[in-house]
Amino acid sequence: MLNNKMTKRLNIQYPIIQAPMAGGITTSELVAGVSNAGGLGMIGAGYLTPTQTKEQIREIKQLTSNPFGINLFVPNEFNVAGDAVKSAHQLLHSIREQLNLEHIDSFDIPEFSSIFESFMEQVKVVIEEKVPICSFTFGVPSKEVIDELKQHHIILIGTATTVREAVENEKLGMDMVVVQGSEAGGHRGNFIDGHQESLVGLMSLIPQAVDHVSIPVIAAGGIMDGRGLMASLCLGAQGIQMGTAFLTCVESGAHRIHKDAILHAAEDQMTFTRAFSGKWARGIKNKFILDMQEHELLVPDFPVQNLLTQMIRKTCSEQNNPDFMSLWSGQSPRLAKNQTVEGLMKDIITEAKKININVY
Amino acid sequence: MLNNKMTKRLNIQYPIIQAPMAGGITTSELVAGVSNAGGLGMIGAGYLTPTQTKEQIREIKQLTSNPFGINLFVPNEFNVAGDAVKSAHQLLHSIREQLNLEHIDSFDIPEFSSIFESFMEQVKVVIEEKVPICSFTFGVPSKEVIDELKQHHIILIGTATTVREAVENEKLGMDMVVVQGSEAGGHRGNFIDGHQESLVGLMSLIPQAVDHVSIPVIAAGGIMDGRGLMASLCLGAQGIQMGTAFLTCVESGAHRIHKDAILHAAEDQMTFTRAFSGKWARGIKNKFILDMQEHELLVPDFPVQNLLTQMIRKTCSEQNNPDFMSLWSGQSPRLAKNQTVEGLMKDIITEAKKININVY
Repeated sequence: MLNNKMTKRLNIQYPIIQAPMAGGITTSELVAGVSNAGGLGMIGAGYLTPTQTKEQIREIKQLTSNPFGINLFVPNEFNVAGDAVKSAHQLLHSIREQLNLEHIDSFDIPEFSSIFESFMEQVKVVIEEKVPICSFTFGVPSKEVIDELKQHHIILIGTATTVREAVENEKLGMDMVVVQGSEAGGHRGNFIDGHQESLVGLMSLIPQAVDHVSIPVIAAGGIMDGRGLMASLCLGAQGIQMGTAFLTCVESGAHRIHKDAILHAAEDQMTFTRAFSGKWARGIKNKFILDMQEHELLVPDFPVQNLLTQMIRKTCSEQNNPDFMSLWSGQSPRLAKNQTVEGLMKDIITEAKKININVY
Repeated sequence: MLNNKMTKRLNIQYPIIQAPMAGGITTSELVAGVSNAGGLGMIGAGYLTPTQTKEQIREIKQLTSNPFGINLFVPNEFNVAGDAVKSAHQLLHSIREQLNLEHIDSFDIPEFSSIFESFMEQVKVVIEEKVPICSFTFGVPSKEVIDELKQHHIILIGTATTVREAVENEKLGMDMVVVQGSEAGGHRGNFIDGHQESLVGLMSLIPQAVDHVSIPVIAAGGIMDGRGLMASLCLGAQGIQMGTAFLTCVESGAHRIHKDAILHAAEDQMTFTRAFSGKWARGIKNKFILDMQEHELLVPDFPVQNLLTQMIRKTCSEQNNPDFMSLWSGQSPRLAKNQTVEGLMKDIITEAKKININVY
């Protein structure tokens, strides 16, 4: 029997966290559903305003009395030359035309200070609303933010893609760390290592991270079922975080086209792109990714490129057009199912309990 | 208890195969040592002549009465323009100068027919010497070769990097298939999918492959200890194949510098390169890889580039110079140890037996 500090600390029944996917996927029904089924539901609040953040927290409280968590994007300084923005804007022009989008002459580059302010407002909401667990992506927040959250007894979970980043998370005060394997869908969480260096498979990443930190390690990337759960625990993780597996669930807010694309994809149809947002992310190859491939190293940093493509993605969603949507997915789409959260959780636990292996 | 068809069929005690690393690493002591310890030792015969192949098989027979196996490179047609060879040759010129190597004016491109002939001779040796197990990399051999080996009751193991390639291996008559995750060191075994598409982490690759073939699946890539063994079995593999873990063993023929480089490396110091051989392979970043990075898409296909760099690599080995050696390694170097094969095998089994996990 596993002496699981992670489930005890988080006060959950099963060592399963629903990945805080940003952009409308983590509906209140999804988050509460996972928490009600004995896992940890997480709000992906990366793109939410402070007000939206507060509203969703309150909505979820109506749907579950179990613990749930929230994820915030740590703001990073971005270096964006005006010229780069202009040419990225021009690159997207023909796509706008194809979608009959209004011509936009200029684009206002957001101020880092206003992004940072919004993040600090979100932190305030998390404290006021007493959300018991807060996780971070794209880095670790400042000592001041960490100290304040800890004073309010909020459990902090960081994100790492390498041993070095996991060690840094522990050093800076995170209570647990999610290690994101190269299998993972969506945005990469690397914040010290470069993109290529950060692509470490979970079979390598989990045991090496576990050997170098004393906080609980949570595995993320390509895990979809009881087999992946048990494998992660064998490697030394105390729990798992699943994105794609929950994304295709009935309760998720992902677009029908996004769910269907995953349900019909194979593991060799994924690729990395930074053309959607300015940050590297794994998704299913589509027209946008292929068209932008030769330009993707030149597009402006996150979140500028993300804002530049926002209207295109939104319009495609409304038009049910998969060509220019960001179809994020991990590397295990063949294991995805369209079922309820309750069904998925039950399947995972049932399958995991059946696995009983001896080596001789 | 696992109903393990793989260990029964191969007639070995533990579901552990020593990866057939080519280029002098798989000494007879290493291969026999693994088989004597209850695993399956494998000769990496990819670069051996038929005569060398026969000699090593006979040598190993003196050292063990347990089953062992051999791996052959399936010859692939290569398309090499004379100009590409000439410019690759020129690119290497300054490196030759640094190493005080003799100036070479011209380079003879090998004939595919002679490479193929040598492969067929190796197949003959395998049959004559009654090697019980033969595995293949870089594709699946012709129906004629497969039929002949099967008539002689030789067990055939293929290599795959994606589900599609695993299915193809089963369809073409392989008895088992090694699935090579993106974590793996050395050459990629992709033969249908492209390099990028073939980079699937084991957490995703094993369960998806297991669901789509009925032959035993053997996991390879980043597995170094009892945790990796148990995780692979949880994911549905019937066994594991380990390269880097055996490479740093006392009995391995890898250069001392190569072993030391792995023993001191971190998981984020690896990269893929095709500059050494013309085929993508994972190794520790060094001067050669970095110097050649901008040219690597232009170097001639395997095995031409491999022959072009052969003397450079050989000279560096003799001069104990790591700058231009191919320091292949998987993504788990932090788990590597320099111990005997017997010690490693015992550690793995002891650790695996201790792992006993429940999910609640």
